[in-house]
Amino acid sequence: MNDHHDPRLDGLTLEEKAALLSGRSGWDTAAIDHAGIPSIVLTDGPHGLRLHNPQASGFSFTDSLPATCFPTAAALGSSWDPDLLTAVGEALGRESRTAGVSVLLGPGVNIKRSPLCGRNFEYLSEDPVVSGVLGAALVAGVQSTGVGASVKHFAANNQETDRMTVSAEVDERTLREIYLAGFERVVKTAYPATIMAAYNKVNGVHAAQNPWLLTEILRKEWGFDGLVVSDWGAVLDPVAAVAAGLDLEMPATGGLSAAALVAAVRDGRLAESALDLAAGRLLHLIERTAGRGEPNPVADVDQHHVLARRAAAESAVLLKNDDAILPLNTGAGTIAVLGEFARTPRYQGAGSSRVNAIRVDSALDALTEAAGDRIRFAAGFTLTGDEGETLIAEAVAVAGAADVAVVFLGLPEDVESEGFDRDRIDLPEAQIKLLEAVSEVTSEIVVVLANGGIVQTTGWDHLAKAILEGWLNGQAGGGAIADLLLGVVNPSGRLAETIPLRLEHNPAHLNFPGSDGTVRYGERLYVGYRYYDTKRIDVAYPFGHGLSYTTFAYSGLAVVAEGEGQDTVVRVSVEVTNTGTVAGKEVVQIYVGDIACTVDRPVRELKAFAKVDLAAGESTVVEVALDARDLSYYSIAAGTWVVEPGDFEIAVGASSRDLRLTEVVSVQAPPVAAKLTLDSSVSTWLAHPEGGPLLQRIGAGRVSALSDPVVLRMVEEIPLNRLIAMSGGRLASPELDAFLTRS
Amino acid sequence: MNDHHDPRLDGLTLEEKAALLSGRSGWDTAAIDHAGIPSIVLTDGPHGLRLHNPQASGFSFTDSLPATCFPTAAALGSSWDPDLLTAVGEALGRESRTAGVSVLLGPGVNIKRSPLCGRNFEYLSEDPVVSGVLGAALVAGVQSTGVGASVKHFAANNQETDRMTVSAEVDERTLREIYLAGFERVVKTAYPATIMAAYNKVNGVHAAQNPWLLTEILRKEWGFDGLVVSDWGAVLDPVAAVAAGLDLEMPATGGLSAAALVAAVRDGRLAESALDLAAGRLLHLIERTAGRGEPNPVADVDQHHVLARRAAAESAVLLKNDDAILPLNTGAGTIAVLGEFARTPRYQGAGSSRVNAIRVDSALDALTEAAGDRIRFAAGFTLTGDEGETLIAEAVAVAGAADVAVVFLGLPEDVESEGFDRDRIDLPEAQIKLLEAVSEVTSEIVVVLANGGIVQTTGWDHLAKAILEGWLNGQAGGGAIADLLLGVVNPSGRLAETIPLRLEHNPAHLNFPGSDGTVRYGERLYVGYRYYDTKRIDVAYPFGHGLSYTTFAYSGLAVVAEGEGQDTVVRVSVEVTNTGTVAGKEVVQIYVGDIACTVDRPVRELKAFAKVDLAAGESTVVEVALDARDLSYYSIAAGTWVVEPGDFEIAVGASSRDLRLTEVVSVQAPPVAAKLTLDSSVSTWLAHPEGGPLLQRIGAGRVSALSDPVVLRMVEEIPLNRLIAMSGGRLASPELDAFLTRS
Repeated sequence: MNDHHDPRLDGLTLEEKAALLSGRSGWDTAAIDHAGIPSIVLTDGPHGLRLHNPQASGFSFTDSLPATCFPTAAALGSSWDPDLLTAVGEALGRESRTAGVSVLLGPGVNIKRSPLCGRNFEYLSEDPVVSGVLGAALVAGVQSTGVGASVKHFAANNQETDRMTVSAEVDERTLREIYLAGFERVVKTAYPATIMAAYNKVNGVHAAQNPWLLTEILRKEWGFDGLVVSDWGAVLDPVAAVAAGLDLEMPATGGLSAAALVAAVRDGRLAESALDLAAGRLLHLIERTAGRGEPNPVADVDQHHVLARRAAAESAVLLKNDDAILPLNTGAGTIAVLGEFARTPRYQGAGSSRVNAIRVDSALDALTEAAGDRIRFAAGFTLTGDEGETLIAEAVAVAGAADVAVVFLGLPEDVESEGFDRDRIDLPEAQIKLLEAVSEVTSEIVVVLANGGIVQTTGWDHLAKAILEGWLNGQAGGGAIADLLLGVVNPSGRLAETIPLRLEHNPAHLNFPGSDGTVRYGERLYVGYRYYDTKRIDVAYPFGHGLSYTTFAYSGLAVVAEGEGQDTVVRVSVEVTNTGTVAGKEVVQIYVGDIACTVDRPVRELKAFAKVDLAAGESTVVEVALDARDLSYYSIAAGTWVVEPGDFEIAVGASSRDLRLTEVVSVQAPPVAAKLTLDSSVSTWLAHPEGGPLLQRIGAGRVSALSDPVVLRMVEEIPLNRLIAMSGGRLASPELDAFLTRS
Repeated sequence: MNDHHDPRLDGLTLEEKAALLSGRSGWDTAAIDHAGIPSIVLTDGPHGLRLHNPQASGFSFTDSLPATCFPTAAALGSSWDPDLLTAVGEALGRESRTAGVSVLLGPGVNIKRSPLCGRNFEYLSEDPVVSGVLGAALVAGVQSTGVGASVKHFAANNQETDRMTVSAEVDERTLREIYLAGFERVVKTAYPATIMAAYNKVNGVHAAQNPWLLTEILRKEWGFDGLVVSDWGAVLDPVAAVAAGLDLEMPATGGLSAAALVAAVRDGRLAESALDLAAGRLLHLIERTAGRGEPNPVADVDQHHVLARRAAAESAVLLKNDDAILPLNTGAGTIAVLGEFARTPRYQGAGSSRVNAIRVDSALDALTEAAGDRIRFAAGFTLTGDEGETLIAEAVAVAGAADVAVVFLGLPEDVESEGFDRDRIDLPEAQIKLLEAVSEVTSEIVVVLANGGIVQTTGWDHLAKAILEGWLNGQAGGGAIADLLLGVVNPSGRLAETIPLRLEHNPAHLNFPGSDGTVRYGERLYVGYRYYDTKRIDVAYPFGHGLSYTTFAYSGLAVVAEGEGQDTVVRVSVEVTNTGTVAGKEVVQIYVGDIACTVDRPVRELKAFAKVDLAAGESTVVEVALDARDLSYYSIAAGTWVVEPGDFEIAVGASSRDLRLTEVVSVQAPPVAAKLTLDSSVSTWLAHPEGGPLLQRIGAGRVSALSDPVVLRMVEEIPLNRLIAMSGGRLASPELDAFLTRS
C-alpha cells in the first residue's frame, strides 16, 4: 500500500501535500482551493458538541456554541446499553452535522486504571469489553449521520499527571488484553473514521510517533483504514509522526510542521510516499464525511433533551436500597431534599469536553414539579465547600421534620478535570458532616451522588439506607434522578468500575502516577475486578453491581462447546425471569475463567453482556456465542492469541461477585508447548508432549535424576545442555539432535 | 586494580591460573602443588555443615557426615537477635574448621518476596534491615573462627521455579532499596570472604555473568574485596563470568571452563588481567581462611546442641495466647499431645542445606521428660497425609479426656525444598480435620506449627486459643518447644515475615513465578509489610508481631535530628518497661516514614531494632542513631541515595501495626529539584525552586496561562518548549537561555 499511487494528489505540490497534514487553525484542516480540497472541522467532544464560538477571542474551552449536554461517559458506561449509546451517538452526529462539523472527537475508550485519573469521567469502564462494545455503539451512532468519530486516546493514556511527557511502561500482553482491546473492538466492529493518538509515551515512544502502535497494530493487524489524528499538541516531531503512521497533526503550528515535512522529504529523511499516504487518508476522510447522512439534517434539541434524560436514568446505579426505601412513592410522605447539588447540579466535567449546555434541569425543580407538596429543600453546604454550620443546622431542621431525607452529595467541580489527576477519592468533609448531622435526626436517608470518578463510600454508607450513584449525567440529569427516586423509571445502571473499600486497594495504587518520567503498569492485566476478584480483596461495590426495584432469577444455564482451537464456539444460553412486581431491566453478565493454564490469568473476565427489559413475571432467554478470542490470552511466546485446551468456567450473574449459575465446559485445542532448545530447562522438556517422552526414553537407565522423583525435583530447573554435560555425555543422542533440528 | 601485577601468580602458567577458577571436584578448588597452592573446601550450609561423605558413591545431598543441625534461617530470622546469630555462626565455624572446611556456604539473605518460594526456609526475612543485620551477625560468627562465609544468592533469587533460566525483571530503585540492601549491609559491616552469585538472570543478564552486579555494585560501590563464587552450576559462559567479575566457578566442569578461559585469553576475547584478578582473589581467600582462628579447634557438639535448643526457643513466635492459656504450668492439668510432628519432628528443609543431624529431640520426648505424668499422646495423622479416621478418633478421645490439647501441625517434608516452589500455603486438609475434630471436644487448644515458609492461619485459627509458630527449628527444637509450652523459656520471637489473611493478598501474588522466562517485580519496593501497610490491607499477623508471657510498656520517646543532608543523624531514644510478672524479651522496632516526598514511598519502613531482656518490673532505655541512609530513597533521577527535606515520622512499636509512640521530626536537606530542560513540563518548571520563579517572572503579563489557575491546570503538563511555541515567542527570553545554559 506504501507504493500505491494516489491520483487525487497528482495536482498538488509537495508543500501543499505537507500543508494538509497539520491544522489550519485550532479546529480545522487546510483547504487547497485549486484542487477542490475543502477544509473540514474536527471538534470535541464525547458527550456533546463543543464548537468554538467564532465570536470568541482566542483559545477557550468555555466560550462555545450551545449544544445538548448528554451524560458523560462515566454515566453512559454504566448503562451497559449499546442501543442507548447508539441513540446518543446519532444525536451527537446530528448536532455536529447541523453545525458543519465533520469529525466529532470521541468516544474515549481508555481503561479506568486508577480512580484518581482526572479524566475518568470521559471514559467508559475498567473493562475492555464494556469499553469496546459501548464505544463501538457510540461510533456507529455518530457515523450513521455521516459525521466521523475519533476514538481516543490511543493508547495507554490513563492519567493526567505528566500526561505529555510520561512513558507508560506496559508489557505487551497487558497492552493487548487490556489497554488495546477496547480500541481493537471498536476498530474491527464500528470502522471509526479516525483514531486520536495520545499525548503520552508507550514504552518510551510517544504514542503519536509510535510506529508499532499506529502502523503495526492499528493498520496492519487490525485493518484500520481511517485517519490518525494527534491529540491537540501531542506531536513533538512531525517527521517522526508521519513516518510512524500519523496523518494529521492538530492544531495548527503556523506552518512549522509542514516546512519540517517538506525539508525531510527533500533531504531524504522521509519517504514522499509516507507523506502521500497520510495526505491521501485525509482526502479519504473528507470524502467519507462530506455529503453522507441526511442532506439537510436538523437537530431537534428538545428531543435530544428527552434522550439525555432517558440516558441519565439508564445510567444511574442503585448501589444499595435497604428496606426498599426507594422508590419514594406517595406513601413515603414529605421529602427533605438536601444538598446544594439538588438545586445546582453537577452534570459534566471540565476540560476539552465541557459543553455549553442548552438548558440544565435540577433535581430539585424536577422533584418539585412531580411532587411539589411533599418537597422541603435545604442547601446543607456550598459549592465552594466553605464551612457552613448554619447551613447544616437548617438542613437538619428540615430533615427532622420530614419523613425521608434525600441528600445530594458529590465532588466539587474543581477536582475533576482533564489536565490533572485527583489525589483522593473521598467526598468533601463538609458533605460528610452534613450527612452525619442529618443521620442524628432520621434514619430514613437516601444519598444521591454526583461525580465522574468514583467516590469512596466506606465510612459513611452505613448512614444511608439507599445510595443512588447518578454520575455526571448531563443537562437532563436532574429530571432523571427525580424519575428514579419517585419510581417513574426503574434503575438499571450497573457499575462499569469497581468501588473499592479504600483508594489504597486499587491495583495501580502504588504505581500511580509514577515518577521520573515513567509510570510502571506493575499490576499488569489485573485491572479493576480482575485484580480484586483474583486477589480476593473485599470491595464496597463490585463491578457489574446495580440494584433494581424488581428482582430477577436465572435458570437453565446451558453451555455447549463446538469446534476446536481457533474455530471454537461456546454457545451460552440462560433464562432470566423478572420475579418482582414491576417492570425492570437486568444486565446479564457472562464471565469466563480458564481453570488451568500455562500462564497466569484473572480468575474470571467479562466476555459478553446483555441488557434485557422484562415486564413483571416475564422471562426471556439470553443467548451468546463466545468465540476462541473470548477464551484466549495473548501469548508472548507464540506472538498471537492462544486458546488452551481444557476446562473453562462459564459463569452467569448480576455482578462479578454475584454469579448465579456456573458451568464447566471442556474446550478442544492443540496443546500449548514451549519451543524446546538445549537451553530449555529439564522441567520444560518433560512437560512437552513430544520432548518429554523422548527425554525419558533417552535418559532411561542412563541418568538417575530422570527416574528418581526426589532428585528430579532438585535438578528439573537445570537447562538440558547442563544435564547433558553433567551426565558425562550419557544423554547425548542422535535422536535428540534430530528432534532439535526438526522443531 | 585491573592492571595491578600480582607477584603470587608469577610462577603459574596461563593454564594453571585458569584451572584455579573452577572446582577440582564438587566441593573443592584446584591445587597447584609446585606453587604451594592448596585446595580448599567450600560446602553447605547456612544452618549446619553438610559435608559430603567421602565414602558415599556419587553426588548426593543426603549422604553427608553428621553435624549439628541448627534452626533454619526462617527460625533464626524470627529471633531478631544478632548476638544469637553470631553465636550460631561461631558454632558453625568451629564445626567447619574441625572438618577442614574453609568456606561455609551461607547465610542466605534473599528477601522473602512470596511465601511460595520453596527456599524461604533458608532466608531470614521479608525486610532487608532484618536480613542484613542478622546475616551480618552470622557472617561475623562464622568468620571469627577463620572460616569464610558465602553470602547468597546474589541477587534477586526469590523463587525456585525456572531458577536457572528465569529473568527477574526489577527496576533499579527496587533492587537498591529491597533486594540488594541486605547484601550491602553484610558486605559493608561484616566483610564476608565470599559472595555467591545466583542462578537467575537479573534484568536479562545471568547474575553469575553480570558485570553491573559483580563489579559495578559489589566491588566498586560497596568496596567488596572478597571472592565471588558461582552457585553450583550457575555459570553458562565461563568467559563472560570472569569478565563480569566472577572468580570461582563451582563445581568442577572437567576442565572445560579452564580450556575456554585459556582460549579466550589467547584469542583476545578476555584480558589476562581479568583472569589474574580472579586467580589472585582465590589466593587471597586461601590465605585468609588458612591458619586463622584457633589452631586446633574442637567442636563441642553437646554444647552446640544446647545452643541449638536456645536458638530454637528464641526463634519461636507466639502468635496468639487467648486467656493466657500458655504457659501450661502445673495447674493446667493433663495435656493431650496430638499430631505426629510431636513424635517425629520436622526440623529442617530439603535440598543443599539438609544436614545429617547428630541427634534429634522430639517435643513429645521433651514434654514427657519434663511432665511425663501429665502427657497423653495420639498421632492424629500420618506423615504421608493418608486419611486417618481412626487416628483422628483416637486423638479426639485423648483430647476429650485431657485438660488441654496441644496440637502439633505443620507442612509435610515433601512440600518445602530447594528446587521447586510451593503452590499453596494451607496446612494439609487431614491436619485441619484433626483440629476441627479436637475442637468438638475441647476449647482448650494450643497449636504448635512446624513449617519453613509461612502457613495460612485464616480458616482455623479461631479454633486455637494459642498458636506457637515453631518454624523448622533444628535438631534441638523439640526441647525448645517444650521449654516454651511449659514456661521454662518466655517466647521472644517476632515475625520477620507478614502472615497475610490469604495467599492471594501477597504483593507478588499475580506476578509470581512469572512466565515466558520472565518474572516481573511489578509490586516494586512494596514487599511484605511495606505493601500491606501502605495498601491498608488487613493481615492475619503483622510483621514484627510476637507475644510474650509478660507485657511491655513504652514511654519517653525522644527524637532529635542533628546535622543536615547526608550528615543527618536522628537520635531516637525510648524507655521500655517489663510491666508483667515474669522476665521476658521485647523487640523494640523503629520505623521511619517520609511524610511528603517527590517519589512514592512505603508508609513506613523498619530501620532499626533492639532485643532487650528485662526482669519483671525492669526498665531500660533503647537508643538508636538513624543516619541519612535510613531516611533516604534511591533516586533514579539523581543516581544516588537522596534524603529530602521535611517531616519524617519516627514510630516505635512492637510490630508494624502496633506502634506505641510516634514523633515527627523535621530534617534539613537541600530541596530536590528536577533537572530542567525545554522538554520539562510547565508544572515541573513551576515546582523548581529557581526555575519556577524565573518562569513566573518571564511569563507575567505575557502568557495568561501562567496567571490563570484554571487555564494553568489544563496546560501545566505541556513541555515548556511547546508553551513557548504556543506563546508565539512571547516567552522567549535571554534570561531563560542563560538559566538553561547554567543548569
